[in-house]
Amino acid sequence: MKPYITKESLVTEQLLNDIACLPTSDLSSVVEDDFFKKLSDADFMRIAVLLAQKSYDEGGCPIGGVIIDNETRKIVGKGHNTLVQENNPYNHGETSAMRDAGRKDFSLTTIFTTLSPCDVCATLIYMRGFSRVVVGNITSASGNEGMLREKGIAVEILEDQNGITLYEKYRKEKPELDIEDWKGLAAVGK
Amino acid sequence: MKPYITKESLVTEQLLNDIACLPTSDLSSVVEDDFFKKLSDADFMRIAVLLAQKSYDEGGCPIGGVIIDNETRKIVGKGHNTLVQENNPYNHGETSAMRDAGRKDFSLTTIFTTLSPCDVCATLIYMRGFSRVVVGNITSASGNEGMLREKGIAVEILEDQNGITLYEKYRKEKPELDIEDWKGLAAVGK
Repeated sequence: MKPYITKESLVTEQLLNDIACLPTSDLSSVVEDDFFKKLSDADFMRIAVLLAQKSYDEGGCPIGGVIIDNETRKIVGKGHNTLVQENNPYNHGETSAMRDAGRKDFSLTTIFTTLSPCDVCATLIYMRGFSRVVVGNITSASGNEGMLREKGIAVEILEDQNGITLYEKYRKEKPELDIEDWKGLAAVGK
Repeated sequence: MKPYITKESLVTEQLLNDIACLPTSDLSSVVEDDFFKKLSDADFMRIAVLLAQKSYDEGGCPIGGVIIDNETRKIVGKGHNTLVQENNPYNHGETSAMRDAGRKDFSLTTIFTTLSPCDVCATLIYMRGFSRVVVGNITSASGNEGMLREKGIAVEILEDQNGITLYEKYRKEKPELDIEDWKGLAAVGK
């Protein structure tokens, strides 16, 4: 099969959404390697936000994550929160992307997350040795960026306004789900 | 279907292993509720160790977890590490048991883990509001018991010698897998 997304392809929202929704293992047959080299950090954050949108559309928490290889810029893992979809009390955007990536040396990768990582994910990010984290929303939540930097990880803030708007909308619509996702069902109503 | 494990059944290694290996959703049709009330904390730790043994037999990391309801003592979730089995860079004994339990109010439960929780799992345990943690092995690893107590969680040490022996054997046989499971592939060989 010849890749239909080539290095000549324009970077459009539609193509980024195709990339977000295709299984990671299929990307290499659909997307030419050089296309990924054209993508900016903001484009990868867009893919993460499109995954957050997918989760929102499924009735879940709109938080997405994308992991890329630092050298090739190819996506090695991606995913979104599955609290609702998998009835999973802890599968955040970051862990979903890591699960998709499998057993990798994450020190050679960058993780893009649409929302400032929670305490658990921040701890996981440094314990798995990521070299770089790009955070798409510190407006709705923040706190662990300093700790990650202290651990020697490069942390960049690259806010995506659509992602922020989506998260704020969801939080107003489903405040209890937002609390459960961060602090567990034990915290809801307390 | 009539439960074949009743309140009159003797607590044997074979019955505990049956309970470890059956899907949690099937337990209520196989085990009479009152049988669980007969089980001591050491018995639940045995079930967690039998799950660790199952993981070892599958070529994986021998760490298991069991979550019980504090009042009924019934098992609501259980599992074992799946680094190897699912190629998952972070699904420890504790998260595996939580995933199995689904979205629950964990403040009403106790989690039994065969190995002292890593930084990520310890953070998750307090963020999900567990009231009590029972740790089966602080000989091979430890460190977060004090932090969990500071967070107001009851932490009990109930070492299981078979579990400790199993973990030490595995660590000698597969030291790189042990490192990867705690610190990620980035830390192996460094």
